[in-house]
Amino acid sequence: MTEPDISTDLNDYGFSTEIRVRLSETDAVGIVFFGSFASYFDVGRMDYLAHLNLDRFDGQIRDLIPGAVVHQQVRFKAPSHYNDILVMHVRISNIGKTSYTFNFLVNNKRDRRLVATGTMTMVWLNDTFDPVRVPDEFRAVVSTFEAFDD
Amino acid sequence: MTEPDISTDLNDYGFSTEIRVRLSETDAVGIVFFGSFASYFDVGRMDYLAHLNLDRFDGQIRDLIPGAVVHQQVRFKAPSHYNDILVMHVRISNIGKTSYTFNFLVNNKRDRRLVATGTMTMVWLNDTFDPVRVPDEFRAVVSTFEAFDD
Amino acid sequence: MTEPDISTDLNDYGFSTEIRVRLSETDAVGIVFFGSFASYFDVGRMDYLAHLNLDRFDGQIRDLIPGAVVHQQVRFKAPSHYNDILVMHVRISNIGKTSYTFNFLVNNKRDRRLVATGTMTMVWLNDTFDPVRVPDEFRAVVSTFEAFDD
Amino acid sequence: MTEPDISTDLNDYGFSTEIRVRLSETDAVGIVFFGSFASYFDVGRMDYLAHLNLDRFDGQIRDLIPGAVVHQQVRFKAPSHYNDILVMHVRISNIGKTSYTFNFLVNNKRDRRLVATGTMTMVWLNDTFDPVRVPDEFRAVVSTFEAFDD
Repeated sequence: MTEPDISTDLNDYGFSTEIRVRLSETDAVGIVFFGSFASYFDVGRMDYLAHLNLDRFDGQIRDLIPGAVVHQQVRFKAPSHYNDILVMHVRISNIGKTSYTFNFLVNNKRDRRLVATGTMTMVWLNDTFDPVRVPDEFRAVVSTFEAFDD
Repeated sequence: MTEPDISTDLNDYGFSTEIRVRLSETDAVGIVFFGSFASYFDVGRMDYLAHLNLDRFDGQIRDLIPGAVVHQQVRFKAPSHYNDILVMHVRISNIGKTSYTFNFLVNNKRDRRLVATGTMTMVWLNDTFDPVRVPDEFRAVVSTFEAFDD
Repeated sequence: MTEPDISTDLNDYGFSTEIRVRLSETDAVGIVFFGSFASYFDVGRMDYLAHLNLDRFDGQIRDLIPGAVVHQQVRFKAPSHYNDILVMHVRISNIGKTSYTFNFLVNNKRDRRLVATGTMTMVWLNDTFDPVRVPDEFRAVVSTFEAFDD
Repeated sequence: MTEPDISTDLNDYGFSTEIRVRLSETDAVGIVFFGSFASYFDVGRMDYLAHLNLDRFDGQIRDLIPGAVVHQQVRFKAPSHYNDILVMHVRISNIGKTSYTFNFLVNNKRDRRLVATGTMTMVWLNDTFDPVRVPDEFRAVVSTFEAFDD
């Protein structure tokens, strides 16, 4: 089984955002449906970009698609429940030529318990849906925030 | 980036089921929201178990939880759209002591194009949510269907 | 409380389609989340139009929006559960100048119990999102199928 | 067509909460999927109850179901989009013997435009799922907050 290399050290995460679990996101087992985490991660992505003033790379959905998700994974550590507040720690762990990868670390706010870890990899696309180089401005802002070595 | 070891040879899949894309499963980018595949995979799991008459291991949601999802991943190969019919090929690729893993291969029915691959790993739990050995009956039925070597 | 005028006489419905309840559509109360019925109704709409070969009025999502939902309602009669098969009876109950209304009657396939009734009203829009007259061809096909008096 | 009697006077609403539109809640038409409003209303219900310290009537999902949704409706006034912030005004408009009804008024935060109105009626249930009288404490707290005439 493949294992993502995700840091569980909170010091590696410079940004976090909170999600409160909605009833629609739970299932008949009584816990959060595992698929709900994809939406949570997407909220983490959106909030992270807004935090770095990079959300103009997010807004023109119709005219320009800055990134398509090419891979996504979640590892579940503990169940969470209706009305729980989840603290989602977000970072971009690396930027390649045409793609970049988010890491997510999700804790339960009440007891600090680790709920899930995950990754989401996006590829930058032009108008004709061909992969293109991640723009320098995006690259520069993220690299500074994440303190990447160049 | 971690890479799942998923066979893309259709001969390795003894079961398939179809999903027609609903409007609610698409997003403003104009394609199927990437998180919708978690629900699709869960339908694949449900249908596969029913096909093998193993759905009694699926029905008593509250009294017995036969499995909790501990890992899930999707690799996206091509976008799909509203009203597309997706053919989801499903197999269990291995059964461990307390866990088992589904593989999914999703094609677009119209042009046979590969849309996504993915895995979902579940762990068997008892009433107190401790991992327990996958029952022999489940193990036997799946091993025969999948022609596992013992 | 407003009460929809929905026929519960199955003879008034010339079309039906089936939905099997997915785990993602249930909630922590153990039943189908009430909001899932909006997606079910939309499937009913899609299947009804396809049945009448009117789905070309449904497909060009980007280029032409044949209808926007302007009102939707559901009355819940009995809970339904994971893996239940719901039989959704669909009809168009009337076509106005620029709008038309679907009626839905949802039964549980196993015990025939009435699960929910509902309505969905759509308005026809042109490229600039102004309401326009429902096209004559759509009107004619539906009126014949539903045996409207003219 | 039935028409809900919902006040569009903001002075009638003593509570509001905000929702930011997620990508998963939009659809391929490019707007918020109409069915997403059911989840939004449920968030409004949850937040309203918490605001009045009535959320203990909300938490014990399995042991006590304080209410099942028996009717829900939405009237759509204007489309909303990914990343929009929706201001949802919530009130309970009346409490009957065994049921009570929420009203929702949803505006777009940016331009104040009316996006949707809606209602949700819940019935109080005991352990055997029979309707029972809405508890006096719930009734008293809401009546005071909403300034009902007795």
